[in-house]
Amino acid sequence: MNVRSELLSQLPLRENLRGLSPYGAPQIDVPIQLNVNENTHPLPQTVIDAIAQEVSKAAATLNRYPDREFVELRELLAKYLGHDLDRENIWAANGSNEILQQILQAFGGPGRSVMSFGPTYSMYPLLASGTDTEYIAGQRADDFTLSADSAAAQVREHTPNIVFLCSPNNPTGTALGLDVIEAVYEAASETNAMVIVDEAYAEFSLANTKSALSLLGGRQRLIVSRTMSKAFGLAGARVGYLAAAPEVTDAIRLVRLPYHLSAVTQATAIAALKNVDLLLAQVEEIKTQRDRIVSTLTELGLKPSVSDSNFVFFGGLDDPHAIWQGLLDAGIIIRDNGIAGTLRVTAGTEAETTAFLERLTELLSAQK
Amino acid sequence: MNVRSELLSQLPLRENLRGLSPYGAPQIDVPIQLNVNENTHPLPQTVIDAIAQEVSKAAATLNRYPDREFVELRELLAKYLGHDLDRENIWAANGSNEILQQILQAFGGPGRSVMSFGPTYSMYPLLASGTDTEYIAGQRADDFTLSADSAAAQVREHTPNIVFLCSPNNPTGTALGLDVIEAVYEAASETNAMVIVDEAYAEFSLANTKSALSLLGGRQRLIVSRTMSKAFGLAGARVGYLAAAPEVTDAIRLVRLPYHLSAVTQATAIAALKNVDLLLAQVEEIKTQRDRIVSTLTELGLKPSVSDSNFVFFGGLDDPHAIWQGLLDAGIIIRDNGIAGTLRVTAGTEAETTAFLERLTELLSAQK
Repeated sequence: MNVRSELLSQLPLRENLRGLSPYGAPQIDVPIQLNVNENTHPLPQTVIDAIAQEVSKAAATLNRYPDREFVELRELLAKYLGHDLDRENIWAANGSNEILQQILQAFGGPGRSVMSFGPTYSMYPLLASGTDTEYIAGQRADDFTLSADSAAAQVREHTPNIVFLCSPNNPTGTALGLDVIEAVYEAASETNAMVIVDEAYAEFSLANTKSALSLLGGRQRLIVSRTMSKAFGLAGARVGYLAAAPEVTDAIRLVRLPYHLSAVTQATAIAALKNVDLLLAQVEEIKTQRDRIVSTLTELGLKPSVSDSNFVFFGGLDDPHAIWQGLLDAGIIIRDNGIAGTLRVTAGTEAETTAFLERLTELLSAQK
Repeated sequence: MNVRSELLSQLPLRENLRGLSPYGAPQIDVPIQLNVNENTHPLPQTVIDAIAQEVSKAAATLNRYPDREFVELRELLAKYLGHDLDRENIWAANGSNEILQQILQAFGGPGRSVMSFGPTYSMYPLLASGTDTEYIAGQRADDFTLSADSAAAQVREHTPNIVFLCSPNNPTGTALGLDVIEAVYEAASETNAMVIVDEAYAEFSLANTKSALSLLGGRQRLIVSRTMSKAFGLAGARVGYLAAAPEVTDAIRLVRLPYHLSAVTQATAIAALKNVDLLLAQVEEIKTQRDRIVSTLTELGLKPSVSDSNFVFFGGLDDPHAIWQGLLDAGIIIRDNGIAGTLRVTAGTEAETTAFLERLTELLSAQK
């Protein structure tokens, strides 16, 4: 134990935090960063200029608290999502992690539970712990798929208060069929539980994949969460949001910190949404690289999962750590999620993707 | 009950939220807003331009997650605070409310308690509730002062896990002597409890008032929280921060959401801190108006508290609501904190202050 952790241990930390390390992927400065599923394309200059202009406008009244209801932002988000949603259906926060934390603060807490189906987004158990909500680890099949029957049966067995469905799933990349979401919602209805579909990567979905937004009508306890971090290329701006029945946003208002969304954040997101077509122009190119990764990995004898996202999860590796390190030695960082025989890579630009595939091919040949 | 609250009541809200309304002062658009202790002076154009430029620079890499450790911002905040602090002593978040929430997540929670001394900042019990921390309402004297003996005795009696000391106190405006903080820390040491001094308004203090920053050395469980919302005139940017022993910031790292502070927020705060002298130039003018309010209210026969802040709390009113309404009818909004016979007003610009004092004088004459 070093001096600093010795000093930390003297503090009256709450018990469930003792011995933990902070969450977060390593922030290593290498030329090709394909480890945290960012959009690796910088923003178009037009959008950068629009953000600077909108922030400059906002700065003139920065001495005042921001619009606590961020009305303009909610209107633009509703318009973007479509599906007959309006601003009353929308809520936003500092990243979708804060959205999920607010949902847990409203509907979870001591004596309540949240269930998800692993392997899935590793923040879920941490968000549960941070709000003293019991975390129930549901299971996927060996090939990481989740069927409607299995999901509903597990919900009926464990009767959680909240269900998180990650679709497309992180880290495995595949979206859930709407039948799975419908079946889980029906099972959850027996105990009046909330169902959250985390669609952080929805814009990258394959052509036949449908968003859970289409299921919101008539389902009062269904929430779809989204983010501007991925398809919009705004990871640095930290804007997550949700769509749900208006009364769900009223529930969140009871737990949100007042003025949680700064005027600068609102201005940035508004400027981006006014240029949504420019921003999303890169999505097709990223999907092309994603599909190229899937087909090349298959040719290399590896086992990539079906990907509806901007990343590819792949198995069939004898020594994932050696591959991860070999890539890092070449200035390319990807993600080891600690799942045996697998790694995960973000679909980057064409050049980044080529560099990754070439180096991977070399490393696999060397291992033979 | 309207339709929307009827629908809300059908949701599986956690029990302690049922029947509550969202927290927040009314956001009423009148010409003179002196109700939420903002800095009513707009930012100097030089600072607005600096923010736009720094944000524009940050926007070029907005597709990437922000620096999770916001190193440059912490360095500038440490330099600003002085007292031999360095970046290892500093943590920041989206407003000091988030700072306090993170402290409660790290050191409070189920089975633990936080104590403060009312009347004080009305968010404390809400933050406690939001983190399932028991709130213990300590008491001030009838004149709203708090002595070292009384505070320490109340801490020894109730043995909270965390103590919040608001200094200068909101809504009453007066700072605590360092003897009070020392005595509370000593009492809290008997049960290894954390002590947080909330100095949101510290820059407005009277000449002889000392900051608790001078007490940090050798006190591992002491935290001083600050904000850029008030003296810096950046309420819209939502930047709160704390100074403490480095291991305290490590404790917060265990509960913070990853990348909680956006690149845009970091850029805004950095630009402001690089122009700190320009921003703080308005503090003396605000203090002049504050002192003018105190002396004029005294002449009018009212009872203003000693103010170390940018607002004045005053008693001696027969019908505070009538005064509040009379001011609002004239386009001036101040704050009714619900404390019998009292109101609170922010010190605005010279013109705003004059308008408030003139209208108040008329209203008091009319009541006689």
